[in-house]
Amino acid sequence: MPVRREGETVIILDQRLLPGQVVFQQVQSVNEMEHYIRTLAVRGAPAIGIAGAYGVYIAVRNATSFNEASQAGESAVAVLGAARPTAVNLNWALRRMLHRIQSTCRQLAQNIEISEAKRLELLREAVRDEADTVLEEDRQLGRAIGQAGLPLLRDGMSVLTHCNAGGLATGGYGTALAPLYIAHEQGYKIHVFADETRPLLQGMRLTTWELNTAGIDVTVICDNMAAFLMQQRRVDLIFVGADRIAANGDTANKIGTYGLALCAKAHNIPFYVAAPYSTFDPELANGSEIPIEQRNPEEVTLLNSRPMAPDGIGVYNPAFDLTPSGLISGIITEEGILRPPYNDSIAAFLHGKTAGTQY
Amino acid sequence: MPVRREGETVIILDQRLLPGQVVFQQVQSVNEMEHYIRTLAVRGAPAIGIAGAYGVYIAVRNATSFNEASQAGESAVAVLGAARPTAVNLNWALRRMLHRIQSTCRQLAQNIEISEAKRLELLREAVRDEADTVLEEDRQLGRAIGQAGLPLLRDGMSVLTHCNAGGLATGGYGTALAPLYIAHEQGYKIHVFADETRPLLQGMRLTTWELNTAGIDVTVICDNMAAFLMQQRRVDLIFVGADRIAANGDTANKIGTYGLALCAKAHNIPFYVAAPYSTFDPELANGSEIPIEQRNPEEVTLLNSRPMAPDGIGVYNPAFDLTPSGLISGIITEEGILRPPYNDSIAAFLHGKTAGTQY
Repeated sequence: MPVRREGETVIILDQRLLPGQVVFQQVQSVNEMEHYIRTLAVRGAPAIGIAGAYGVYIAVRNATSFNEASQAGESAVAVLGAARPTAVNLNWALRRMLHRIQSTCRQLAQNIEISEAKRLELLREAVRDEADTVLEEDRQLGRAIGQAGLPLLRDGMSVLTHCNAGGLATGGYGTALAPLYIAHEQGYKIHVFADETRPLLQGMRLTTWELNTAGIDVTVICDNMAAFLMQQRRVDLIFVGADRIAANGDTANKIGTYGLALCAKAHNIPFYVAAPYSTFDPELANGSEIPIEQRNPEEVTLLNSRPMAPDGIGVYNPAFDLTPSGLISGIITEEGILRPPYNDSIAAFLHGKTAGTQY
Repeated sequence: MPVRREGETVIILDQRLLPGQVVFQQVQSVNEMEHYIRTLAVRGAPAIGIAGAYGVYIAVRNATSFNEASQAGESAVAVLGAARPTAVNLNWALRRMLHRIQSTCRQLAQNIEISEAKRLELLREAVRDEADTVLEEDRQLGRAIGQAGLPLLRDGMSVLTHCNAGGLATGGYGTALAPLYIAHEQGYKIHVFADETRPLLQGMRLTTWELNTAGIDVTVICDNMAAFLMQQRRVDLIFVGADRIAANGDTANKIGTYGLALCAKAHNIPFYVAAPYSTFDPELANGSEIPIEQRNPEEVTLLNSRPMAPDGIGVYNPAFDLTPSGLISGIITEEGILRPPYNDSIAAFLHGKTAGTQY
């Protein structure tokens, strides 16, 4: 699990070091958590939401007075929210934490007989409970997404995936990989092609690691080999995760997803996005409004610290791209598979939920 | 220049070490040359043809008798021809060398008064001359391809290319990059996006290096970012090289070319292949007959000697893919741009030439 709590201690698995080393880090402060999120020690849209929630808990836990705790919690929301711009789950989780801090403070303000120390204790408990709920809910969402996607799979299928949208990206089974885990539990033999996912190789390092550990047959390819596999009819289905989904179904996901979707379309291979309600941002009409994070050029040009490009050349390093909803066969959610027209199916799915940037 | 002769010495630029180190290697034997070709110290379809030709020269140069020389030349053709299967230029150059050895031997057999020592000298000269001709002709072909492609370019254009089909891949200006060099000489401002080209990063290491050295503005991207650039209308044209072109225009080129062509089609961006006559293989009706080289899995999983994937997973590493001619806007040759229907335009272009596996 990428983020967990043991008593008052928050622990993350440092995914920058996988698969070579399995190292857990105790997170001591909000700034440390922000650093771990920004440098991708914790990554994956749902997981950074969970990490953000526990970052707020750490701020409140570290405070020594009630007033300090509520202020530290609110400022943690601002600090953590700026760590990464594209995945909406982070802001969703932070707003949810803020909402809980504010509602708890309002409740406590109505009872002037509670001592200062007790107020601090109650606020800490409320914030810890909310972070735990974000984690536990995500774990259940992963299993539900897996069940919803299962009918798409048949014994013996080959599924291609991009980046890592598995257990390392979430609280539990993941999103794109969740149906594969459920199918594996039910005895299906599934073969997975994992795009290595340049520049940071989340596919080669993380997806292969978690599938291999689970006993699922996995083959890594360079991103540029996927089209050739499709041409040879060696891919039956494509499953990817999402960092933000607009009201019309346009999806921001790891860079390379869009090219994959175009190639899938050209070969009539079904292309599915898997995501829980927290990844939807119904306030955005379409994908063009989703901010795309640009990251450090050295992620592209340095390979294990060694420069592979000459000095002085340009480097373009967007972390995500936009896949128009017209290329998406369906969106696998915890309540089933949404189908086009997405404006309608997404609105119906989100009815009554506080998705994306809402709260 | 990737391969050159100085007196009796054959020298290659070791492209495995670029851009960090510029190291030239003297090639002492056929086995060394075969090793340099197989391990990509010399790479690029035209350049491995030139390297093969000089490999045959080395075999003949090292021999101490006329009979040994002709036999060594013939066996060098067999050894070098097995180094890499996909690019037809290698076999084309080797057959050309074999043809020259055999015709020289036939001529010498008609004159019994020539001494053994003189026969050896004449055979060495003939073989050296043929290798020099392969190199010099390729240099001229590059310039002619550049001139032929120039009308496709306009001042201020952005061109995307894959792998390295420039001066490092050929005897001179290259193939895909040749029009860019000519345009640059004429004062056009051209911007190039270079796909890094996993697994061996010929784009990031080589294309950026040679364009930057020539003063052409270049930006490296990961292969999986190309589609997103196209979606943003930041690419005007795509130029790639070729390793083998069938009679119908189907083209084998570096892995990733096919996916790029599919994305170009989806965005109506012109997609051009650039190649000299020696890259055509009119004996193959279509691309399905072109052998696709599978290379060592560690090219994918080791980054600067460090394993990036867990032990025991599968790895797929085809060095090339096949782009159907229907995705190709035109083929830029030394005699102009071939257009569909390619069966006709290629046959007319090759009329009277000894292309591909012919000789």
